[in-house]
Amino acid sequence: MPFPTSINNLIQHFNNLPGIGQKTAERLVFYLLKKDKNTLADFANTLSHIKDNIKNCNQCGQITESDLCSICSDNKREKTIICVIAESSDIGPLEKAQQFNGTYHVLHGILNPTEGITPDRLNISKLEERIKNNGIKEIILALNPTIEGETTNLYLTKLLKKYDIQITQLARGLPQGGDLEYADEVTLANAFKGRIKI
Amino acid sequence: MPFPTSINNLIQHFNNLPGIGQKTAERLVFYLLKKDKNTLADFANTLSHIKDNIKNCNQCGQITESDLCSICSDNKREKTIICVIAESSDIGPLEKAQQFNGTYHVLHGILNPTEGITPDRLNISKLEERIKNNGIKEIILALNPTIEGETTNLYLTKLLKKYDIQITQLARGLPQGGDLEYADEVTLANAFKGRIKI
Repeated sequence: MPFPTSINNLIQHFNNLPGIGQKTAERLVFYLLKKDKNTLADFANTLSHIKDNIKNCNQCGQITESDLCSICSDNKREKTIICVIAESSDIGPLEKAQQFNGTYHVLHGILNPTEGITPDRLNISKLEERIKNNGIKEIILALNPTIEGETTNLYLTKLLKKYDIQITQLARGLPQGGDLEYADEVTLANAFKGRIKI
Repeated sequence: MPFPTSINNLIQHFNNLPGIGQKTAERLVFYLLKKDKNTLADFANTLSHIKDNIKNCNQCGQITESDLCSICSDNKREKTIICVIAESSDIGPLEKAQQFNGTYHVLHGILNPTEGITPDRLNISKLEERIKNNGIKEIILALNPTIEGETTNLYLTKLLKKYDIQITQLARGLPQGGDLEYADEVTLANAFKGRIKI
């Protein structure tokens, strides 16, 4: 491209991000070129320091700036129910749904033996610690409905059976606004198995 | 969102970019959190200094780091043909097509009286200077085929009529891979008007 090196470099940085191709990257850079220097400096500053103050919550493992995350340190949250998720980013959609008032536990991944992600690589021992020490009543497994997610669900269910707690997983079925005609066999099978009386 | 402030700030910065919504912004930030500090620092550094060395080419007005852009200072480019474009970013797709070996002239916008963009706000006087002094033979108008683009084409054609040069515009017609069924009336009318003998 006939652009100056610094422009090409910035295009390349944006192009490296997931889902952003060459054309979109060019568009973003030319958009940014029209912004004032302060905005750019602020953006750059936030970006370069993003990892400086970020650590994992001592309790649930989600990203936070203090020892305990905002949810674990919130007195209004039900501390005896834990929703197990794969990544910190999964908290976004779950909180938006405003259906859950317990705390979370972030595994930092899901089981994937072919990629070398075995149980010891996940944040599981801390989950057991929490169950032992904090009077946990229910564990809700909220992992992606994929083969890896199911494997992790199975592993955790077996592992946690020894504790006197309820283990549940999020319901499987037809997504709201979905179309029966386009639903796959597994989704339909799950919808039949999980049907409820109305 | 239950994320730390610095994360929310970075999400907001990405969310401000055109075509990037809240979910995509979250995804990008969590992707970046997995990158090492050096990559982030390099990205941030490029971003914050992007405007420092960037200026407009003394001749054609496109963005460059030196006084003359890479195209204007390239001896292999035909200096007597000028392709007039609205923005520096338009050079990308035109160069990729590898059909044009002349130089460019960037107007930095197109005429839009309702938004206050009148001819004196555009980089037009320098274009006339180039025509007068550099023995220009042809001006190719390559503005977007929109109402504003057509208005600007019309204005420039009238303005430049007094010089002994050829003024052309990029052909209008059916785009490659397009479908007659979905072509709009104006595109079809242009395709009829501009039909060529085969």
